[in-house]
Amino acid sequence: MLNSQELNFEQIKGQAEEWTREAGQYIKKMMESSFSISTKAHQHDLVTDVDKNVEKFFLDKVAETYPTHRLMGEEGSFELINDLEGIVWILDPIDGTVNFVHQESNFAISIGIYLEGEPIIGIVFDVMGDELFSSIKGQGAMVNGQRLPKLARNSLNEAILSFNAGWMLKDRRLEKLVESSRGVRSYGVAALEMAYVACGRLDAYISFNLAPWDIAGGFALLQEVGGTATNYNGDPLNFLEKDTLIAANPGVYDEVIEVIHGEK
Amino acid sequence: MLNSQELNFEQIKGQAEEWTREAGQYIKKMMESSFSISTKAHQHDLVTDVDKNVEKFFLDKVAETYPTHRLMGEEGSFELINDLEGIVWILDPIDGTVNFVHQESNFAISIGIYLEGEPIIGIVFDVMGDELFSSIKGQGAMVNGQRLPKLARNSLNEAILSFNAGWMLKDRRLEKLVESSRGVRSYGVAALEMAYVACGRLDAYISFNLAPWDIAGGFALLQEVGGTATNYNGDPLNFLEKDTLIAANPGVYDEVIEVIHGEK
Repeated sequence: MLNSQELNFEQIKGQAEEWTREAGQYIKKMMESSFSISTKAHQHDLVTDVDKNVEKFFLDKVAETYPTHRLMGEEGSFELINDLEGIVWILDPIDGTVNFVHQESNFAISIGIYLEGEPIIGIVFDVMGDELFSSIKGQGAMVNGQRLPKLARNSLNEAILSFNAGWMLKDRRLEKLVESSRGVRSYGVAALEMAYVACGRLDAYISFNLAPWDIAGGFALLQEVGGTATNYNGDPLNFLEKDTLIAANPGVYDEVIEVIHGEK
Repeated sequence: MLNSQELNFEQIKGQAEEWTREAGQYIKKMMESSFSISTKAHQHDLVTDVDKNVEKFFLDKVAETYPTHRLMGEEGSFELINDLEGIVWILDPIDGTVNFVHQESNFAISIGIYLEGEPIIGIVFDVMGDELFSSIKGQGAMVNGQRLPKLARNSLNEAILSFNAGWMLKDRRLEKLVESSRGVRSYGVAALEMAYVACGRLDAYISFNLAPWDIAGGFALLQEVGGTATNYNGDPLNFLEKDTLIAANPGVYDEVIEVIHGEK
C-alpha cells in the first residue's frame, strides 16, 4: 500500500529535481577531473562509472525516502522490473552517452515517474546546457521554472524534424519526410529531443531503437503540452521493452503517420 | 595604405569580440520583446530586421574605427565586394536563421577578418548558448577564453559527422559515410558546426550550399587548430561565391575524401 507521503506528487517532483541537479554536479565534476586523461579506454570506463554511480545514487535515495517505490534503470544492476504496478521511477542516468564521451555536452539525465503505468512526473535535465525540463500530471510542463505553452497544431511543411541519418538507410519512407518538411536536425540524445518537441524547438522526433528509460521522462513532458507519442506503427508506447518512437506536435504527428503509412 | 592601427590584429580582435557581444545582447532583447507576437509574418520581419540592423551596426563601427577596412555581409545592402584586397570583414549577422525563428536558439554571429584573402581573425558566437569561439592567426583558437588544443588525427570509424539529411538525397555517396562513421548529427547552423569541428565535438561537417559569410569565421578557427577545409571536390575554398564544403579533423578529412572520391 502506498501511504500519503508516497503519493504526494509535488513533493516527489521537488525531491527528484533536487537529486537530478545534485547528480548533474557530480557528473560535471567527474568530467572535469578526467580532462587530463583522454584515452579511449579511460573514456569508456568514465561513462560506465558515471552511469552506475548516478543510478546507485538514485536507487539509494528512492529506497530511503519512498520505500515502496521501485526504480528501473539502464544499468539494471539492482532489480529486474517486469511490470509497472505501483510507482516506478524509470531512469536514464546519462542519455546520449556517445555525446557525453565525444562532445562533453548534449547529454541528459532523464526520469519518468509512473503510477500504474501512467506518467505522473517527467524530468529531463541537459546537464551542460543547464536546462531542466519538468512536468507533473495535470499541472503542465516547465523549463527552468518557465511554463511551456500547449502545442498549437503545426503543419509538416513548416516543421523541423529530428532523426538519425542512419534510420534513412533502414526505411526509405523517411526520405519523403525530408522532402516535405522545412528541415531535419539530429542531436543524438533522445530524452532531450523529446523535450525539444515539448517546447516546440522540434516538431517531431523519430527513432527506431529506444529503451523505456530513454523515453519515459520525455513522454511525461509531452503529455502535459498536448504532444503525441506512439511507436513507428502508431501503437501505444510500451514502457517494458525496446521499441520505435514517433514523438511529435499533434498536427505534425498526423501528417507524419500519413506520409509513412497512409495514402494521400 | 593600411596604417599601424588598422593592422593591429590583437586590438582588432578585441574590438570585434566586444561588438559581437553587444550585437548578441541586441538580438536577445529583440527576441524577448517579440515573444508575445508570434505570427509567421512577424517572425519573418523580425529575422529580416535583426539581420539588417546587426549588419548596419558592424558596418558603422568598422567604417568609423578602421576606415580602410571593407565589410562583406549577407544583407549586402551597402557595397558590393568583388575582391578580397586589403582587409575585409566577412560577416553573417545571424547564421542559422531557421533555428533563430523556430528554436529561438542554435544560431550564431560569424565574422572572418581576412587580409589579402587569408584569414587573420575568426569569431563565431553562439548567442543563446553564450559560447564565443575566436582565433587570431598564429596565436591559436579559444572558446570563452579557454585555449582549444590542436586537433589530433581521428579515424572515420570513431568520428561524429554532421550534415543535413537533405544532402543524402542529392548525393548517395554520403550514405557510405553514415555507415562507416560512429554517428551523424545535424544542427542547422554552419558557422557553429565548423566551430564544433575546431573544438572536436564534431569530426567533419559537410554542406552543399554555403556562402562566404557562412564559412569565413569558422575557416579562420580551423586554421588555428590544424583542421582542414575545402569544397566537396577537395579544391581550396572560395570566399567570393557560394560553394560546397568539407570542414574536418585532418585524419577524418583524408578518409572522407577517400570514401567520396577515391578507391579504397
